Amino acid sequence: MLAIGRAYPTISRSVSCSGLRLFSSGSNNGRQIQLGGIYPPLTTPFNVDETIAFDKLASNLTQYAQIPFAGYVVQGSNGEYPYLENEEKLQIVKFVKDFIKESNKPLIAGSGCESTKATVKLTEAMAACGADAVMVVTPAYFKISMNDAAMISHYTTVADSSSVPVILYSVPANTGIDLSIDAIQILAKHPNIIGLKDSGGDVTRIGSIVQKTRGQDFKVLSGSASFLLPSYLAGSVGGVCALANVLGDVLCHMHSLYENNVIDKELQRRLIDPNNMVTRRFGVAGMKAALDLFGYYGGPNRSPMLSVSAEARQVIKKAFIDNEFVPQLR
Amino acid sequence: MLAIGRAYPTISRSVSCSGLRLFSSGSNNGRQIQLGGIYPPLTTPFNVDETIAFDKLASNLTQYAQIPFAGYVVQGSNGEYPYLENEEKLQIVKFVKDFIKESNKPLIAGSGCESTKATVKLTEAMAACGADAVMVVTPAYFKISMNDAAMISHYTTVADSSSVPVILYSVPANTGIDLSIDAIQILAKHPNIIGLKDSGGDVTRIGSIVQKTRGQDFKVLSGSASFLLPSYLAGSVGGVCALANVLGDVLCHMHSLYENNVIDKELQRRLIDPNNMVTRRFGVAGMKAALDLFGYYGGPNRSPMLSVSAEARQVIKKAFIDNEFVPQLR
Amino acid sequence: MLAIGRAYPTISRSVSCSGLRLFSSGSNNGRQIQLGGIYPPLTTPFNVDETIAFDKLASNLTQYAQIPFAGYVVQGSNGEYPYLENEEKLQIVKFVKDFIKESNKPLIAGSGCESTKATVKLTEAMAACGADAVMVVTPAYFKISMNDAAMISHYTTVADSSSVPVILYSVPANTGIDLSIDAIQILAKHPNIIGLKDSGGDVTRIGSIVQKTRGQDFKVLSGSASFLLPSYLAGSVGGVCALANVLGDVLCHMHSLYENNVIDKELQRRLIDPNNMVTRRFGVAGMKAALDLFGYYGGPNRSPMLSVSAEARQVIKKAFIDNEFVPQLR
Amino acid sequence: MLAIGRAYPTISRSVSCSGLRLFSSGSNNGRQIQLGGIYPPLTTPFNVDETIAFDKLASNLTQYAQIPFAGYVVQGSNGEYPYLENEEKLQIVKFVKDFIKESNKPLIAGSGCESTKATVKLTEAMAACGADAVMVVTPAYFKISMNDAAMISHYTTVADSSSVPVILYSVPANTGIDLSIDAIQILAKHPNIIGLKDSGGDVTRIGSIVQKTRGQDFKVLSGSASFLLPSYLAGSVGGVCALANVLGDVLCHMHSLYENNVIDKELQRRLIDPNNMVTRRFGVAGMKAALDLFGYYGGPNRSPMLSVSAEARQVIKKAFIDNEFVPQLR
Repeated sequence: MLAIGRAYPTISRSVSCSGLRLFSSGSNNGRQIQLGGIYPPLTTPFNVDETIAFDKLASNLTQYAQIPFAGYVVQGSNGEYPYLENEEKLQIVKFVKDFIKESNKPLIAGSGCESTKATVKLTEAMAACGADAVMVVTPAYFKISMNDAAMISHYTTVADSSSVPVILYSVPANTGIDLSIDAIQILAKHPNIIGLKDSGGDVTRIGSIVQKTRGQDFKVLSGSASFLLPSYLAGSVGGVCALANVLGDVLCHMHSLYENNVIDKELQRRLIDPNNMVTRRFGVAGMKAALDLFGYYGGPNRSPMLSVSAEARQVIKKAFIDNEFVPQLR
Repeated sequence: MLAIGRAYPTISRSVSCSGLRLFSSGSNNGRQIQLGGIYPPLTTPFNVDETIAFDKLASNLTQYAQIPFAGYVVQGSNGEYPYLENEEKLQIVKFVKDFIKESNKPLIAGSGCESTKATVKLTEAMAACGADAVMVVTPAYFKISMNDAAMISHYTTVADSSSVPVILYSVPANTGIDLSIDAIQILAKHPNIIGLKDSGGDVTRIGSIVQKTRGQDFKVLSGSASFLLPSYLAGSVGGVCALANVLGDVLCHMHSLYENNVIDKELQRRLIDPNNMVTRRFGVAGMKAALDLFGYYGGPNRSPMLSVSAEARQVIKKAFIDNEFVPQLR
Repeated sequence: MLAIGRAYPTISRSVSCSGLRLFSSGSNNGRQIQLGGIYPPLTTPFNVDETIAFDKLASNLTQYAQIPFAGYVVQGSNGEYPYLENEEKLQIVKFVKDFIKESNKPLIAGSGCESTKATVKLTEAMAACGADAVMVVTPAYFKISMNDAAMISHYTTVADSSSVPVILYSVPANTGIDLSIDAIQILAKHPNIIGLKDSGGDVTRIGSIVQKTRGQDFKVLSGSASFLLPSYLAGSVGGVCALANVLGDVLCHMHSLYENNVIDKELQRRLIDPNNMVTRRFGVAGMKAALDLFGYYGGPNRSPMLSVSAEARQVIKKAFIDNEFVPQLR
Repeated sequence: MLAIGRAYPTISRSVSCSGLRLFSSGSNNGRQIQLGGIYPPLTTPFNVDETIAFDKLASNLTQYAQIPFAGYVVQGSNGEYPYLENEEKLQIVKFVKDFIKESNKPLIAGSGCESTKATVKLTEAMAACGADAVMVVTPAYFKISMNDAAMISHYTTVADSSSVPVILYSVPANTGIDLSIDAIQILAKHPNIIGLKDSGGDVTRIGSIVQKTRGQDFKVLSGSASFLLPSYLAGSVGGVCALANVLGDVLCHMHSLYENNVIDKELQRRLIDPNNMVTRRFGVAGMKAALDLFGYYGGPNRSPMLSVSAEARQVIKKAFIDNEFVPQLR
């Protein structure tokens, strides 16, 4: 690890990105964001006292810079976004944007809140801090009220007011809500809604969405590496995959093969079990354990999420090794 | 309606209850809160621009003052708490506490957040603003990680640090998470955890919890009027029921009958359909429509929750009338 | 145990109850079956080779004769009915009917099949063999097609053709289907549909059904001892409870107390954990283990259902003893 | 329609295939069944009185003979198997086997029952009547008891005793049970268990099963056309797809393209909506409506399954036409 500390900007306690706002907002509006390829949903590194470890974030980003990612996502589920204060979320957006600026790669930031009002506000603040697009998770607490009418109204209001493009985000394993295909079909027509991250794992659904949004400027990103290749076949253009945090080069390679019409079924199957460890089975805690294993910084989660046990770490390691992804080689 | 406007305290934009903190915290600690009876989970009245309508809140509270409630709950699900900023939550706590002060009835405030850290912080702020106890909803976003160990650690940390008693809050219809009986059994032993609000509707579960926490200073409150009487039979001591917002006197009457060993099965059955309208079928939007119907202030919800349709209002009205709860008589 | 062997009738390989048919059918039609009280859903005792152990069935029935049950149920879920050939089902109906004849207590037999046609046929055969009423489980395989229209048509056809009264049977834990309140409300008006066994455990639902079928000759029976008392409060008139197979006297006592307006909440709570062992936790295999424990014949299950482990037997035993139901005292 | 009546064998009321048994069983044992390609899960045509319309079955089979199917499946979910008597099931096996004999294509018959004993018996009877392999659905009624140990024991007993190869069948939408990957991994080692029909729609699961059964003589068939292509990518070798009953040539074409390494994503997406009509949305009743639409015999379902409405027929028709599968052209 290099002395990266100096490379990243100082974060003042209270983030005010208002100076950037008009400029950023203007430039984003003009800029065309083309979704496609592999985006790692960055984890939020914490120190043992649960404060954000910006130096570790920098160190991970430095390593990621070697990988042909299409861009970066902050404040996805893997960023433990529900555990962060808005202030912290903005600090991270600003920090990562500054760090990746020279790469010219887009930064997508999760700005979804339960209320429309808060989502609009956070979206603008994130755009002001440098986000090139926002990814807006479905509001989910009042499940019976979150019908299509409510969802369409919510996303339309957010997209109308946002200075950067909006990506819908459906992640039923966490929210208990799956944005309906009917709602997506309507929202896809909004000029400022450019795509969907779908983490449900139902490729029939993905195929159906692609089919029903044909002709729209609307793209689908797969939310997990376990069904990345089948998703391409169903019509997705890339992925925001937890596993990209540790096997970014592998996923980018698969994407590149696919773009050259080469389909590596065996590689896809080898990804399932390792992916399972960092998603369904052990969640973000498993993800961070895998990061540690592969020479990145994983570190602790914020409470109440507990770190995985030593035993679980061995299970995770084994799943990678059994599928020929050998941590030691990095 | 009287000129209540003058009766309630002015709310400054930024609530600082730090002056109250030590005093309130001290007095609460010394005070014994005995759970039991009916508590309305207050709705948060909004103006059409979605700002909080404190005057309407005051007007509702004035009407509620006539009813022998055991106390009040703010920032339960019916308070649309996920749609409020922390600042607003504290304003409401302070406002309601000031309003009910002379009644000497306890105020319970919902302080649950996704992270332990944020929950601890909000708990303290609410206590400082006058909350006599806090009700802490289960963290729920990272479902696979929210196992018993995580839950026990979360609630223990919150209860350890809180200057006011803690009430567990399990509401699977909203969160997709049901706090396990095993976890509850362990948490019930914590001296600062005094009870559980259970909104799941499974009276077998309630009976089992009561059975397994015998001898502890731990009480169960039913989370809905639809199973209030069966819950008493299972061992609960009262209810935090949405329906109490419109039929408070009826529910208090039923509680009082029960305390005198009179069981009115017919009354319980009449409550089911009206209750269904303001919970499972139309949610908080239905609740607010019913408030309007009964001469309280319901008003709009905060986005993305939409108000119910005119047609739904008729369905709601019919359910009350069919069960002989006639809005006109109020 | 007495030499009961002689007391029960010989079962020929092929059961033909056609001689009984017209007579039985005629007499049943004239007879009023009043639902109410406790009915044990008899288990089907098997020998180690999985053939039916009629001698053990006789021995259990002899012991049950001491208990003030309201009647008996055969081919409920606890009878492992899906594992029996129709021939065997009829043998059991005939056997039990002959055995209990002098008690004058009604025999309810489960005749539900997936197709309407088969249900009609089995219903008639069971009536011919002595069933005083049939309990018809919801068809459940083609879940998306089992809407209200299908259910209403199915039960109406069965009830129209049946010479004995029909009891609806909803057991979502096994079938994944819950007969809707709307469908029940319509079916309750059929003169030959006399009630519902509801095993779902949702007393709000039971209360709602009782409320919406007021004035009909239609009764609700609780499908489990864990919510027996709350169900009475919700308006049920009795129970078909697995636990009645081992704690029949206790449940009949609770029913009798209730009829005398005495409510023993503590007793109800003591029943939950033992009941859990023979239902949700270990199923029919747990039920049979408990039978063995209490001096009845439990014995093996038919494959693929496996017997519980020795360890599970201890857990089951402990749950009874911890709640002061001591096996040794029988 | 030709005078096909003469072409098919007379079915006597009581099917006895015992004469065929030893021979068939012997020949099947010797024969290698290679799973792969498209198999239509035949519907069971009924007359309006709900008796089996063998002449219509013959007419459908005559049309199917033009299509390069890999084989045929009877008594899958689309065959409405839970609504048939065993006698009828055997009649159909014998009838279809006789009809397709000259094609030399294998006949796979669904022999799964709730009890192991009944499954063993029906398996043998079906083999005796000409089934070349059996497809055994998971027993599902006693859900909590159907753990891995029970499933492994069940399938092992069936496979041990069967004279024809066994295919596992997991269809959670109907049964509420998903055979676990762990159980499949163990069962795949049995020499007489040759594959799995998986109708769950989770291609990650399919990929994982393929990965974990590498080296075994075990194949996975996709249970639906909506994820056929993604399933190939995940490692499946073909499909038993409802949609093959109406778009058999299209599915066989897609299979053939895939075998020649041509991937037609657009075709796959066009299949989703039509497929949805005959599965998730309208079930087997929708399937039969589509058959009528495409010049096959669909006809009524057996009760309690109701035919779809005239309105639904239009919706179904539109889904095909919108995706350029034009009924009139056949």
